[in-house]
Amino acid sequence: MLQIDFASKNRITAVDQSTKDILGKGFFGDDEGKSLRLSPEEALYLMDVRNAECTHNGRSMPFDELASGFSKSGKFMAKYLTYRDWRDRGLVIRRPGPVRSTANKTPVKSYPGSRIKLPKYKLTCTFFNSDMVSIIGDKDKGKQLYESLWLGQYGSYKAQDRGQLNKLDIFETLYLMDKRILRPLSTTPLSIRRTARARRRDFDRLYEVYRDWRDRGYVIKTGFKFGTHFRVYFPGARPMTAGSTERIHSKHVIHVFPKESRLLISEWARAIRVAHSVRKTFILAVPGNLPAQKVGIDYVLFHRRGGEAENPKTATPRYGMLSLSEDEYIGGREFAGAIAEAKRRRLELVMAIADRETAVTYYRIRQIRLANSRNEYYEIDWMQP
Amino acid sequence: MLQIDFASKNRITAVDQSTKDILGKGFFGDDEGKSLRLSPEEALYLMDVRNAECTHNGRSMPFDELASGFSKSGKFMAKYLTYRDWRDRGLVIRRPGPVRSTANKTPVKSYPGSRIKLPKYKLTCTFFNSDMVSIIGDKDKGKQLYESLWLGQYGSYKAQDRGQLNKLDIFETLYLMDKRILRPLSTTPLSIRRTARARRRDFDRLYEVYRDWRDRGYVIKTGFKFGTHFRVYFPGARPMTAGSTERIHSKHVIHVFPKESRLLISEWARAIRVAHSVRKTFILAVPGNLPAQKVGIDYVLFHRRGGEAENPKTATPRYGMLSLSEDEYIGGREFAGAIAEAKRRRLELVMAIADRETAVTYYRIRQIRLANSRNEYYEIDWMQP
Repeated sequence: MLQIDFASKNRITAVDQSTKDILGKGFFGDDEGKSLRLSPEEALYLMDVRNAECTHNGRSMPFDELASGFSKSGKFMAKYLTYRDWRDRGLVIRRPGPVRSTANKTPVKSYPGSRIKLPKYKLTCTFFNSDMVSIIGDKDKGKQLYESLWLGQYGSYKAQDRGQLNKLDIFETLYLMDKRILRPLSTTPLSIRRTARARRRDFDRLYEVYRDWRDRGYVIKTGFKFGTHFRVYFPGARPMTAGSTERIHSKHVIHVFPKESRLLISEWARAIRVAHSVRKTFILAVPGNLPAQKVGIDYVLFHRRGGEAENPKTATPRYGMLSLSEDEYIGGREFAGAIAEAKRRRLELVMAIADRETAVTYYRIRQIRLANSRNEYYEIDWMQP
Repeated sequence: MLQIDFASKNRITAVDQSTKDILGKGFFGDDEGKSLRLSPEEALYLMDVRNAECTHNGRSMPFDELASGFSKSGKFMAKYLTYRDWRDRGLVIRRPGPVRSTANKTPVKSYPGSRIKLPKYKLTCTFFNSDMVSIIGDKDKGKQLYESLWLGQYGSYKAQDRGQLNKLDIFETLYLMDKRILRPLSTTPLSIRRTARARRRDFDRLYEVYRDWRDRGYVIKTGFKFGTHFRVYFPGARPMTAGSTERIHSKHVIHVFPKESRLLISEWARAIRVAHSVRKTFILAVPGNLPAQKVGIDYVLFHRRGGEAENPKTATPRYGMLSLSEDEYIGGREFAGAIAEAKRRRLELVMAIADRETAVTYYRIRQIRLANSRNEYYEIDWMQP
């Protein structure tokens, strides 16, 4: 039986040779020569799953007594549960050590950018305040705008020959006003912007992201059907491909998570879940000028290579892990901070979320470089380790 | 060509015989003998889709000019777009008339209830504040509680033989404390409740719903994987069926929408969308003592019977429709009010949501009667008319 000795909260060790040998081979603990020093989650894991016995001053110490010593420290159970889950997959997980200069494993994905080609004509529109929709007065130009830049919705959705009007959503309306192509009748752009801000507090952030992608030639439409703020098409997308009556399918959705905002983890994950269920790539936009919050990562993770589990003897870690639980909040600044910390360690960030039932879900986060944009964007993937 | 006459915002009519005949057969307008009176959305629909010509004092009046007269009235475009979508499906839609005593078409679904059989023993637990999880000290009783009532998670999720501890989530912890079965070590139930309330403002409402279903024998676990607050099993469900290593699958999820809360329609719909994508029945819980807000429904809808579209001559309406748009808010009181109004009219409620791109999504709402509960519950289904 594995034997663990609890001297104090800061000193948990294995001392007998047999335990030290077994744990050393399993990449548990730090070898100090005479003893093998264990972190609390390592000790608890060995007790919970490997039936190790822990003693304190000669008497046996049960799991909950050991754990309760840490019950006041931040998200202790989330850290334990995510630790256990990774270990249970036969993979190695360690507390982060000092930063080493290793090969860079922080992925960055480049998204190309062109420049939107705006029309030369001027248009007027009627704006509907309570719906935040506007209708372009000129039917022909309205149709042209729809067909060339996929701005607005001409006719009916999925039946553009039914009806003759182009209806612009609030983002399209303001975008064309900013570009001095559109002028509202009997109201002003400022008043329209105020309406939008009064409707939703995060409007400016959503619009900032909308504009960022539109300026680079991307087509941005509502993501309502996919549970996100927007869906995205690469530059050049048109409502219908020539000669076809079928709509092209978007492959990306964008959700906006401003730095100044905070979300329950369960709500944060819900948006990703819908995108995943419809096989879209989920892009998280993190706009805002606030500095990232300093956040440590909880663990470094080893993964597999060719079916073999990697370990600290033969490889460097691949992921940095942030351990979270379903019912806590995450802020935009905190999210940006965790990304920055993983980058500093040259690792890819993984968010591990323990739900109320101790099941763990993993999300992998990869930075996107959108041509010349100053905003931060990330692809988030559900991951099965 | 169809001819429409605009006299004033309150008087839009068709007067020539040919137009009156065509519109009468299509169940547009109210026949006043000499003329057929049209609602604004009817007039706009005929102009937009059927190419009708509207004149005002002898001159032609385009769609946006007519529409702009209503641009200040609440959600005018949402009403128009949902009107158009229903019509485009070949179905009849009308403004609601006076309430008539017709056959009751408001469905109510009964959910059975038993009574939870609680154990006689007493237990202690260690509570982890920042994770809102507790661990039961007694391993054997912990296992028994898990196996008999599916309270907590014994071992690991999907591998209950891995590990020997029962971990209770915050709802389970408080429930067992309220039932005087569980006592926390080194803290109090009151302090635990305070922690939960500080974490999320709606905690008491969530717990109220949790307790309501648990008391009636249902098993309630986290709905994290399905994007909702809870998932539900009918009374008698156990973690694993005897002799099987496979977990049973829940068929219902519960999302809590307190009367005093407000949600963006897009967020409201997102929760339903996840449940729909995993084929669960979505139950909306609307707890709270606030009175429902008085809300009118926007339209009454005729549907199909045996492939034939129903109409006002041969049938009474089947649904009451509330028209909404993606970017507006809905409150719990408002939702309750729309339900009440549909019920008063003896209709089933349909929520029609126009997104920014004019596409319309429909949700059908059916009340649930949960044995002896005072709370309001509704099944919400995505519907393709």
